[in-house]
Amino acid sequence: MAGKWTVFVGTLIGSVIIVLSENAATEIALRRRQILLQKELDMMPGSGMVLSDSELKANEIIMNMKLKELDFCFMNPQYFNFSKHFFDYNNEVNKSELFKLIQKMPKGAMLHAHDTGMLNADYVLKLTYWDNLYVCFNNNNTNFKFSKNQPNTACETKWQLMKEVRNASENVEKFDNDLKKIFTLVIDNPKDVYSDINTVWSKFQQYFINTDGLFTYKPVWEQYFYDTLKAARQDNIMYIEIRSVLPALYDLHGNVFDSVFTAQSYRDILDKFITDYPDFFGAKLIYAPLRLGNRETIKEHLSIASEIKEKLPKFFAGFDLVGQEDLGKPLKDFLPELIDASDEINYFFHAGETNWFGTNSDENLADAIVLGAKRIGHGYALIKHPVLMEEVKKNNIALEVNVISNKVLKLIEDSRNHPLASFLANGLPVVLSSDDPGLWDAEPLSHDFYVTFVGVASKHADLRLLKKLALNSLYYSSISNKDRIVHEFNIRWTKFIDDIVRGKW
Amino acid sequence: MAGKWTVFVGTLIGSVIIVLSENAATEIALRRRQILLQKELDMMPGSGMVLSDSELKANEIIMNMKLKELDFCFMNPQYFNFSKHFFDYNNEVNKSELFKLIQKMPKGAMLHAHDTGMLNADYVLKLTYWDNLYVCFNNNNTNFKFSKNQPNTACETKWQLMKEVRNASENVEKFDNDLKKIFTLVIDNPKDVYSDINTVWSKFQQYFINTDGLFTYKPVWEQYFYDTLKAARQDNIMYIEIRSVLPALYDLHGNVFDSVFTAQSYRDILDKFITDYPDFFGAKLIYAPLRLGNRETIKEHLSIASEIKEKLPKFFAGFDLVGQEDLGKPLKDFLPELIDASDEINYFFHAGETNWFGTNSDENLADAIVLGAKRIGHGYALIKHPVLMEEVKKNNIALEVNVISNKVLKLIEDSRNHPLASFLANGLPVVLSSDDPGLWDAEPLSHDFYVTFVGVASKHADLRLLKKLALNSLYYSSISNKDRIVHEFNIRWTKFIDDIVRGKW
Repeated sequence: MAGKWTVFVGTLIGSVIIVLSENAATEIALRRRQILLQKELDMMPGSGMVLSDSELKANEIIMNMKLKELDFCFMNPQYFNFSKHFFDYNNEVNKSELFKLIQKMPKGAMLHAHDTGMLNADYVLKLTYWDNLYVCFNNNNTNFKFSKNQPNTACETKWQLMKEVRNASENVEKFDNDLKKIFTLVIDNPKDVYSDINTVWSKFQQYFINTDGLFTYKPVWEQYFYDTLKAARQDNIMYIEIRSVLPALYDLHGNVFDSVFTAQSYRDILDKFITDYPDFFGAKLIYAPLRLGNRETIKEHLSIASEIKEKLPKFFAGFDLVGQEDLGKPLKDFLPELIDASDEINYFFHAGETNWFGTNSDENLADAIVLGAKRIGHGYALIKHPVLMEEVKKNNIALEVNVISNKVLKLIEDSRNHPLASFLANGLPVVLSSDDPGLWDAEPLSHDFYVTFVGVASKHADLRLLKKLALNSLYYSSISNKDRIVHEFNIRWTKFIDDIVRGKW
Repeated sequence: MAGKWTVFVGTLIGSVIIVLSENAATEIALRRRQILLQKELDMMPGSGMVLSDSELKANEIIMNMKLKELDFCFMNPQYFNFSKHFFDYNNEVNKSELFKLIQKMPKGAMLHAHDTGMLNADYVLKLTYWDNLYVCFNNNNTNFKFSKNQPNTACETKWQLMKEVRNASENVEKFDNDLKKIFTLVIDNPKDVYSDINTVWSKFQQYFINTDGLFTYKPVWEQYFYDTLKAARQDNIMYIEIRSVLPALYDLHGNVFDSVFTAQSYRDILDKFITDYPDFFGAKLIYAPLRLGNRETIKEHLSIASEIKEKLPKFFAGFDLVGQEDLGKPLKDFLPELIDASDEINYFFHAGETNWFGTNSDENLADAIVLGAKRIGHGYALIKHPVLMEEVKKNNIALEVNVISNKVLKLIEDSRNHPLASFLANGLPVVLSSDDPGLWDAEPLSHDFYVTFVGVASKHADLRLLKKLALNSLYYSSISNKDRIVHEFNIRWTKFIDDIVRGKW
């Protein structure tokens, strides 16, 4: 029996050949097992981090919470929420002590978030109480328009003043609840209703179509962004990068403003917000029009991007294309235009937000890499692309992973199967984000951190992973000088840790 | 704009620095894209294969079928079966021309299959028509026993002669349909009924408990194995390796036989089968008792394995442990015993058949590797273990992947998320198998090949992947001299290809 085991001795202690007792063979096997598994733990983001004494204490508290949740569910998988649809357990998340703790945690930056997908249906409903709002109930959708007089734009039925419709309704609470349904994807029996990816995407896109006239009213647009920043700050986020299609805004005086103006209005609101909340570190814009049209359309988009960059150089972060990847145009269709602009404009492309292996949407990943993307939105399909995965690692391209979005938008059912588990195990550069959390009633980042920590990452992953993911979000952001924000992050982190240790969270 | 692109020029054509026109930059980007994607295609199993002219023609036919199915579902994902539960589309598989073609395809060997999980409920029902069968309907389960007289073993109600119960029933068809339910996992609304992994495993294990007295009756045991071989041959399989717990068999004369006898009876039936069907290439046994008990139990199992190996050296392939990995004992508990026997006995351990990242069941993968397993059963969790994945590749340990089993037994919902997609993309040594196809009414290998080819592998994967997977099953089998079987495989393959080309399949 010595034969096989001397090989390992050779590997471990040089070329000395010794005869092994049974015990020694077991010892060596155990040691080899440990080396293999340790090597993997060492690859996990944050593994190299040295924790302070306080952090070690906090880690113990956090890991006790995590293991309590996990061990119970391991024995009682019927209670393991992360194998269910998010809507089936979202209400229960608040019961978790660990979730509450993660809410308190400084989470750095939110880097993948869409303009009007940030705030929930309750918030949007309140906007419908604003003055001068008209509504048009069509057969298949609903339109809104702020106007001093009856709007003259198309309506299958007729434009009615929202206030009057609401007052005329028999039951205002019921009326509002019905209205709220068009401001959210949340629904009972989501698995039955959203039976496939196109069905849920259709409802998802319908939300943006329905709300267009509501959100593009300049005062609403500005308020919404202000409140997005507020929600982010409230969720212990210091900085955000917002993707926006930059729609044309309008006002009550018949003015219509272009995309550059919309960008400018974002920047003005940001300035106002930072004056009101000087502890917030800022925001940047990723101009992200729809992945539709032809090469000429993209050329125009890129020219708008250039103009914004010129006018708002500090606020502009880069460019992306959005919409359901499977049904939209692939990046390769616009390669000449995108390459042409690539020296001037930073790219943050959505790529691989698909389950269809070997299709154009899947291979958008290759294009994003070839186009020198700074970060990749989702990158869900990267797990099936070992060569591209190496490129991502080598070129230090961060993956903006949105675990809950991927569940709601039907890429995955059980969080434990999310490729993020492998991305983390492989030590890929990952940042967590939330995509459109308003549509599924999630916090800007807390839910995604919680699901990742308990439902995706290894049981062994601890405080170091959480800290590293938060730090990654700063490191891979478009902030030019990161010293100040990292310094402030560390101060807030230390306070967070102290609060945990003192039981004050 | 030249700056960024000259880097790629450097990589591609040496260190000549040239100024690029826009067109050239696009060309280079396209070329780089193509190189990256081609590099991945080159890693896929079978990519190195050179197809004959006939194979090229057959490939065109097969790829037309595959792309027709895929392209339709890409646009109409509500019809994409492989994102659904297997029970919700199994009846539709037969409509697929491609499936019928895959049934005809020589598939080599079936290497991961369990003794009494091979044949469907219709088959098992017929066994209940045998003479001398008694049945005992307990509250929570049903027991069977062949006996000349009323059995005297425990029964909550009373032992009744099956023939009499059936004849006394008001409606025999209904009676048989009810009885069949305990011989299958197939059910309406599987997603609701099998709400979590433990629920479905409990029903799964109950099947083996219920049928124990039925299958361990020596004549039934032997007939079942004979018919398993027949089903395999019918599905164009040439050779199988069967895992068995080797239960004690009994007969009508009060004899009870031990595990070694059960192994012997398998070998005798195999001999008989090969006499009847000399075109079948054989079978070997993997002794696979339950992953329960203590170190002493395992020692006894290993000693039985040794005895079988000594008595039936050509029939015995190796050793494994079976049962729900999460709830059973991890391999590391038995490391000393398993190491001790590892020079003598080949291992084919189940490992990583779990979604629980970082648990003992997950880390069974490390133990299987350290113990020098020849193949790994399932290896589902390997995708989360980059270091272990490297070891598997380096040591050429085949993964026995069972995609449909993993769906039915609740590891995965959508086949497109199955880690097999990544295993193939990474060029890992993979063989396809079916685990317990009788319980979900699948063919021995055809359904697993079909789901893999259309629902898991890249859209680009073609005939070469199918052929390579079939050849892998021979290469990674325990057949000592593989020349004869590979030669015969090639003859059958050529005939299969010719039949396709001539439209005669």
